Amino acid sequence: MTDKMKKPQQITLDHGAGGEASHELVHDIFLKRLDNEFLHHLDDSAVLDLTGGRFAMTTDSYVVDPIFFPGGDIGSLAVHGTINDLSMQGATPLYLTLGLILEEGFPIADLTRIMDSVAEAGREAGVKVVAGDTKVVPKGKMDRVFINTAGIGSIPEGVEAGSHNARPGDLILINGCIGDHGIAVLATREGLDFQTELKSDSAPLNGLVSAVLKTSSRIHVLRDPTRGGVATALNEIAGQSGVGITLFEDALPVSKPVLAASELLGLDPLYLANEGKCLMVVDPDDADALLGTLKQEKYGKKAAIIGEVSDKNPGRVLLKTRVGGARILTMLTGEQLPRIC
Amino acid sequence: MTDKMKKPQQITLDHGAGGEASHELVHDIFLKRLDNEFLHHLDDSAVLDLTGGRFAMTTDSYVVDPIFFPGGDIGSLAVHGTINDLSMQGATPLYLTLGLILEEGFPIADLTRIMDSVAEAGREAGVKVVAGDTKVVPKGKMDRVFINTAGIGSIPEGVEAGSHNARPGDLILINGCIGDHGIAVLATREGLDFQTELKSDSAPLNGLVSAVLKTSSRIHVLRDPTRGGVATALNEIAGQSGVGITLFEDALPVSKPVLAASELLGLDPLYLANEGKCLMVVDPDDADALLGTLKQEKYGKKAAIIGEVSDKNPGRVLLKTRVGGARILTMLTGEQLPRIC
Repeated sequence: MTDKMKKPQQITLDHGAGGEASHELVHDIFLKRLDNEFLHHLDDSAVLDLTGGRFAMTTDSYVVDPIFFPGGDIGSLAVHGTINDLSMQGATPLYLTLGLILEEGFPIADLTRIMDSVAEAGREAGVKVVAGDTKVVPKGKMDRVFINTAGIGSIPEGVEAGSHNARPGDLILINGCIGDHGIAVLATREGLDFQTELKSDSAPLNGLVSAVLKTSSRIHVLRDPTRGGVATALNEIAGQSGVGITLFEDALPVSKPVLAASELLGLDPLYLANEGKCLMVVDPDDADALLGTLKQEKYGKKAAIIGEVSDKNPGRVLLKTRVGGARILTMLTGEQLPRIC
Repeated sequence: MTDKMKKPQQITLDHGAGGEASHELVHDIFLKRLDNEFLHHLDDSAVLDLTGGRFAMTTDSYVVDPIFFPGGDIGSLAVHGTINDLSMQGATPLYLTLGLILEEGFPIADLTRIMDSVAEAGREAGVKVVAGDTKVVPKGKMDRVFINTAGIGSIPEGVEAGSHNARPGDLILINGCIGDHGIAVLATREGLDFQTELKSDSAPLNGLVSAVLKTSSRIHVLRDPTRGGVATALNEIAGQSGVGITLFEDALPVSKPVLAASELLGLDPLYLANEGKCLMVVDPDDADALLGTLKQEKYGKKAAIIGEVSDKNPGRVLLKTRVGGARILTMLTGEQLPRIC
């Protein structure tokens, strides 16, 4: 009898009971991939040394379906998502916690693949998982795996990048094509033919944000257009800052496959989720330099200036269309794509 | 048409889409109950000012079934659980994040009741929810509501209370009766007759731990015996500290209803989950003073000295039975009670 035959190949309720099976899972699957000086102790809380200052703290749960999709999986998505939430405050992400909820019967092989992704995503971003928790729910009481990541990061002195901080005259940049994540997940879920061309943009943006903050001290807003897409994020900025925003349709980077798939499915890329995009509202004098910085970055090659801020129509977002017209872009008002992240 | 008629009475997929319905939920249900200077901004991350030093960080997901039980609900449990994980490092809990995963169709009234509990539990413990996230999963893809709470707390200078720190000669205290949470949840789930006498011990232990740390500087281990119960927690301490532990059966506080229910169901209270208990491994010279301190505390009235640490049988936990015998107490090896927390 080999070791492999003796070990369970699926998650059992025992794995969530806090006893021997839980301990084996933690050592064999989690610690092997994520070990560091904080997680190593396996106490209920990690002990961290922090120097004083301003910190960002955030949480996100991930319920994406399918759990594996072109360009990532629920594990990398969970790490990237929380890193990006911290980055949007201008923070340097430091530490993550990882809360797993697993369905009884979930394949250990899939869990292993997801944890490989978590580890790889953490390594790329230079962020450590310092505490974790696993619960197991009886078969049929949930769908496979949900992941929560919470995180903390330190905010460099002088950085102020809240959504309330956009000013008339500012220009709006984005670091690349919109809608990739939403369409990649939907295409995989629906088994659409053209899915090979579509790939999620899921990526950690902490490096890019750090470069941007070094280029200009006049970054007024950083915002990742995830659920609800670019249209919803810009509406939030317009509302919280009390300004009007004009978006130039012909400047918006959208890939051809995403455009084609969106038209076929009757979806608007402006409302599709992104997981590796950042909207930056910046002083107009710094916009060109920032565009140059972005284009040097791994996740900024297709960066563009896509809009401007004014004192007209406060709280509103206006889309200037290719044909010269203009229409009001509202927030997302219904669920286009459940379980997109 | 009244306002009440217009508002949805159940969670819809829209509530998790990041658009208008999400915003309404956040304002009407969450912010109304949890508002504070950090959460108020509703940015993706909260911005916190922390003075330098040592911090504890932790995460836990809650999938308890039933979601309402005698002595609490999934909301209070989630807040208490994370507060207690931080307290077990001797930390003063400061800030929590709250990640909700909701099933489409979940009653808004139940969500409101749960958020009332979250708010009340936070108030009692003096802890603020600073960031949150809500995901909605289509009906049938999960069971009602799961909650993740992550938290951070500051560790006072000089406090070192890891599970690796028990020393031969130390005495072991507990702050009250064991098994209450496990039996209360099970009895409610099974609709057992005697459930009216049974109540979860779910409670925040930060006040009690703070009092204990003021009484003695020789608290070597603090540990909450949640999943897996007292037997599993003591095994972990024995293993991580490389010591032997002897537990005195006749000193263990167990309530009569818990004893009766355990016998009926064939369960051992030593393996039942607790959500308001703390095991303390302390210098023997300080044990009596600590017992006095505990008995003054709201959650310590039935505190007792229940065991001792030795250099014999390292890694093992021995139970000295009432009749004078002794048997080895192992870790929990199977799932007694799924979805107990």
